[in-house]
Amino acid sequence: MSASIQISPSILSADMANLARDLTRISNADLIHVDVMDGHFVPNLSYGTAIVKACKSATDIPLDVHLMVSNPDDTVDWYIDAGADLVTVHYEASTHLHRTVSHIKSRGCKAGVVLNPATPVDVLEDILDELDMVLLMSVNPGFGGQKFIPRTLDKLRRLRAMCVEHGVDPLIEIDGGVGAGNAGELGAAGATVLVAGSAVFGAEDPAQAVEDIRQAGTRGRASKEA
Amino acid sequence: MSASIQISPSILSADMANLARDLTRISNADLIHVDVMDGHFVPNLSYGTAIVKACKSATDIPLDVHLMVSNPDDTVDWYIDAGADLVTVHYEASTHLHRTVSHIKSRGCKAGVVLNPATPVDVLEDILDELDMVLLMSVNPGFGGQKFIPRTLDKLRRLRAMCVEHGVDPLIEIDGGVGAGNAGELGAAGATVLVAGSAVFGAEDPAQAVEDIRQAGTRGRASKEA
Amino acid sequence: MSASIQISPSILSADMANLARDLTRISNADLIHVDVMDGHFVPNLSYGTAIVKACKSATDIPLDVHLMVSNPDDTVDWYIDAGADLVTVHYEASTHLHRTVSHIKSRGCKAGVVLNPATPVDVLEDILDELDMVLLMSVNPGFGGQKFIPRTLDKLRRLRAMCVEHGVDPLIEIDGGVGAGNAGELGAAGATVLVAGSAVFGAEDPAQAVEDIRQAGTRGRASKEA
Amino acid sequence: MSASIQISPSILSADMANLARDLTRISNADLIHVDVMDGHFVPNLSYGTAIVKACKSATDIPLDVHLMVSNPDDTVDWYIDAGADLVTVHYEASTHLHRTVSHIKSRGCKAGVVLNPATPVDVLEDILDELDMVLLMSVNPGFGGQKFIPRTLDKLRRLRAMCVEHGVDPLIEIDGGVGAGNAGELGAAGATVLVAGSAVFGAEDPAQAVEDIRQAGTRGRASKEA
Amino acid sequence: MSASIQISPSILSADMANLARDLTRISNADLIHVDVMDGHFVPNLSYGTAIVKACKSATDIPLDVHLMVSNPDDTVDWYIDAGADLVTVHYEASTHLHRTVSHIKSRGCKAGVVLNPATPVDVLEDILDELDMVLLMSVNPGFGGQKFIPRTLDKLRRLRAMCVEHGVDPLIEIDGGVGAGNAGELGAAGATVLVAGSAVFGAEDPAQAVEDIRQAGTRGRASKEA
Amino acid sequence: MSASIQISPSILSADMANLARDLTRISNADLIHVDVMDGHFVPNLSYGTAIVKACKSATDIPLDVHLMVSNPDDTVDWYIDAGADLVTVHYEASTHLHRTVSHIKSRGCKAGVVLNPATPVDVLEDILDELDMVLLMSVNPGFGGQKFIPRTLDKLRRLRAMCVEHGVDPLIEIDGGVGAGNAGELGAAGATVLVAGSAVFGAEDPAQAVEDIRQAGTRGRASKEA
Repeated sequence: MSASIQISPSILSADMANLARDLTRISNADLIHVDVMDGHFVPNLSYGTAIVKACKSATDIPLDVHLMVSNPDDTVDWYIDAGADLVTVHYEASTHLHRTVSHIKSRGCKAGVVLNPATPVDVLEDILDELDMVLLMSVNPGFGGQKFIPRTLDKLRRLRAMCVEHGVDPLIEIDGGVGAGNAGELGAAGATVLVAGSAVFGAEDPAQAVEDIRQAGTRGRASKEA
Repeated sequence: MSASIQISPSILSADMANLARDLTRISNADLIHVDVMDGHFVPNLSYGTAIVKACKSATDIPLDVHLMVSNPDDTVDWYIDAGADLVTVHYEASTHLHRTVSHIKSRGCKAGVVLNPATPVDVLEDILDELDMVLLMSVNPGFGGQKFIPRTLDKLRRLRAMCVEHGVDPLIEIDGGVGAGNAGELGAAGATVLVAGSAVFGAEDPAQAVEDIRQAGTRGRASKEA
Repeated sequence: MSASIQISPSILSADMANLARDLTRISNADLIHVDVMDGHFVPNLSYGTAIVKACKSATDIPLDVHLMVSNPDDTVDWYIDAGADLVTVHYEASTHLHRTVSHIKSRGCKAGVVLNPATPVDVLEDILDELDMVLLMSVNPGFGGQKFIPRTLDKLRRLRAMCVEHGVDPLIEIDGGVGAGNAGELGAAGATVLVAGSAVFGAEDPAQAVEDIRQAGTRGRASKEA
Repeated sequence: MSASIQISPSILSADMANLARDLTRISNADLIHVDVMDGHFVPNLSYGTAIVKACKSATDIPLDVHLMVSNPDDTVDWYIDAGADLVTVHYEASTHLHRTVSHIKSRGCKAGVVLNPATPVDVLEDILDELDMVLLMSVNPGFGGQKFIPRTLDKLRRLRAMCVEHGVDPLIEIDGGVGAGNAGELGAAGATVLVAGSAVFGAEDPAQAVEDIRQAGTRGRASKEA
Repeated sequence: MSASIQISPSILSADMANLARDLTRISNADLIHVDVMDGHFVPNLSYGTAIVKACKSATDIPLDVHLMVSNPDDTVDWYIDAGADLVTVHYEASTHLHRTVSHIKSRGCKAGVVLNPATPVDVLEDILDELDMVLLMSVNPGFGGQKFIPRTLDKLRRLRAMCVEHGVDPLIEIDGGVGAGNAGELGAAGATVLVAGSAVFGAEDPAQAVEDIRQAGTRGRASKEA
Repeated sequence: MSASIQISPSILSADMANLARDLTRISNADLIHVDVMDGHFVPNLSYGTAIVKACKSATDIPLDVHLMVSNPDDTVDWYIDAGADLVTVHYEASTHLHRTVSHIKSRGCKAGVVLNPATPVDVLEDILDELDMVLLMSVNPGFGGQKFIPRTLDKLRRLRAMCVEHGVDPLIEIDGGVGAGNAGELGAAGATVLVAGSAVFGAEDPAQAVEDIRQAGTRGRASKEA
């Protein structure tokens, strides 16, 4: 029996004036995805520690904090102190990736690495074994509501093969343009965590949307493993 | 009869999980102070466009957006698009201050310049006449809850004198460690807008705290003008 | 029958005081190569929008604009607005390569990626399918008149093999130390566009030099395909 | 008898495809103004060493090179090597201003400092005595064709007073929105060199435009000295 | 009776292979001047924490650590932890000068601000009262053995006047081209601490050189106060 | 008969107050490892040119200078001028790696590239043939006394295989957590130079420690080649 796909709704699409309320609407989520953007690494400044803290105070669901910042090596502690349960840093922004990953884990927090759409998975060769998660961007980071980049599926399969070769099994998360419509093929290709923003918070019933995406993803995953 | 001091509560001290609710608690505020921090200009990343939009959706009170970012010349439009009514940029972070100020105003938004505690008011000599607001930091930017730096009073008096000399009357805002206890002397020294964070949102009755600070400030101002 | 190699003379070796005149001397060129250098990515500041515009006004030959700048993600629009028909950005300078390439193409302009001599072609794995051109530097960028780095031939063959594997056929351009003497082996190794600076503008008859290099390259290419 | 105002036409408004020709059209100019922009200090990349060299090859008029670049301390030599007779660096971009000015002069080149519109003249207190020129921007740098900022007149008078106090007499140049219409008041306020771009190259007879602006400026200067 | 001038020999001119030995040769020094250069703020990378620690282990004379680094706001703690007794940061490199100065003092260390030769003393208006030391560079920082810039004397007098006006009496240190030949006029103009490098370590008897400079400086100071 | 492993003691663990003395204690070393840190690329500023010069004056053993700086492309000459015999630059910090390596070699100095723990060896594909040394970090750079990262052994074997495939034989150096206990397996995996800091200078008899590590490494190497 295959394990269930996890869903990490991105609050980028939530009503930030009523965040606690919106978080209660997705109480069946596995993780809460917090898209931290600094206006340097990406051309948008969304939010950071203040919102990580607000989420922590409002929900017991683990916080999956995605750092789209140009100085993650120096600032990961801010987000761990604010309540992050998992922190992902961009390969493209980190110079001392091994140190940063080790440091996050030494704080009792889970650690992951994010790859932009054009960054190949090979760059993970000497860090993969240390990771709790790999996050593949399936849109270019910076804004919600973008269209899924199809090549992500091929990249996902290569990452899955690389994990098999290394004998490791990190969470593999996909972020960008994900919904019930493509969750199945993502699950089949190896994804284990799906980020969904507008597909969840733009739905009439966000909890139902979470459930629908999860079921579609889980069926895809099972079909592959069958 | 002297004009009333304006109060601009900083949401840095609000409950960000319930922002709309906290904003209704200070419906008598004159402005809402949004402390945008990018984790580069200051060692904290608070929030940006997402929260400016959330405030805009939740209140009709004008938004007073304070940019603690290292690239304001390139990014002011983000905040205007998100709903800012007044944008202040740091002198220490801006290279093309005249262009940035002119651009903000050309967008139909009010424009101001912020000075860090150690930056003297003389640097404003050739931009003062263009400004809708000067914001003097009375603590070092980056975090809430700090203690007021007393030298701010002297600096405020020099700024007021400089405005008289130039024949201009911009809003003069003070940010950091402000409460009912020192609002009077700030009003007397020339402040016209007071930012208050913990003194407002940490109070039992935030609206009453706004009113108390305003009255104290207004009395100080009147005493001076009398 | 094999297609002809294209020649893109670099105006870095032209007489910039008489650019229109020099452009008429190479009216048989396939592209005009404009080497934009910003004095940050490379230790030289050559020219930018002003010269792209000048070329556009003086010739109908498509402009092949090579951005040796450290902030291409933010500035490609400047060059498209100025008249570029093809824009190449350096892998080493671009953080959001997929977004930048997509954006260039969305503007109706062709898009390419440039690799410095030490950068392996593997880094293109997840962007190659989107590209109109790959430009391999065969000298270190920054100055004209340098000597061809022989390892480029091996790299070119690997890139050609990678294109075959991906089922794509972008233009493959070589820049640096190219002339009639090595055009043949470059054509044989897979190049389809050759940049030539001093070999063209330093010749008595620049148009003849263009033709000579083209013929040498085309023969090399044909020999390989035969 | 008062000395004549000097005119430094900016080639930003020239036809860069026919630069040598356009330079012959202003053979009565006193200086040639070369606006070097790097796409970092200002949001435009115009041209650099390649065009300084081209000007040098095409004219004997001294080259007045205005560096709108973010790393002038490290790069002034490039422009001197290319043929600059006078180099001005921005106060806002230079950390070691005294060293940079001294270095330019040690190379046998004249040295100046440029101030952005919002930068007060007081910042020159400890460098003024070393300068061959002070350049006051009367528009925000980056583009041609902008409107003159009136406050420049007041700033010019303060600079002139400061020079008198220091007992020095550097060239005082004004750049931005200058034409025959305001040359008189600029001359009267203390300017000795006027940059003109579109007012010269946009005119039917550029040499006549140079002469008109010069005469207007010189009359203004004389009126003041009378 | 006038207080004695203090001498702070710069180890930039010491034999760094035998630092402990050279430090014993100047056991009559008042301070040890450690010139930390990072290769970014200045075009030289001298030394940092490793040498501060080495000095601390080798002498009981207080360490006067001059940070020529571009990120002092973030790194002052490194030097305090390494044993600095006094830390000076450059005005030109520090964005949050009041916070940095306050932080240094909160660590039980003395704090000062350094001005480059072209930076006027007016910039200290709102921080002077907090300072234990002002350091005026009398050469451009980066290298030993340069010639004293004469304008420093005028600047020193203005700083002294400013201190009188503020009612404060920080140490006033001069660094660059100082020796027994000009110590007197520096003492007369208001200096209280003199840095000497080659004048001390280049002398046959470094301790005697320290004493000679101190006496010359002290006589100058006394002559003024008489 | 197998060649001996070389030992490059890092002076990061030496007594910097008595550097000449400590260098005489390791007169049997093959190289002296100088860890230059700039406080930007790594969160520590150790030392630079001043200490390279001091080492040069105190020993004839070749200097192996490891640049942990963020601007190596622009600054390698400083260290060559100061006496470096071999300079290694970080892949993660260098944009124009081929030019930098070529330049170092053109100065008559040996050139190498360093990889951080998470950087895979594949990135060297197009520069390996030019290198005198590859340095693999077996700890994260910035501080002495850290624990060896085991994955380095796998990486070392891949690098060795890559060298065989390319037909080249550069020095392969390992830096971090190296001592007699793991020198053997490093030699067996392909290392030819071992950096040791605390294992050497923390020993009672540093020369003996050098010899012990060398013998252990050499035995490992021989066992493999047998």
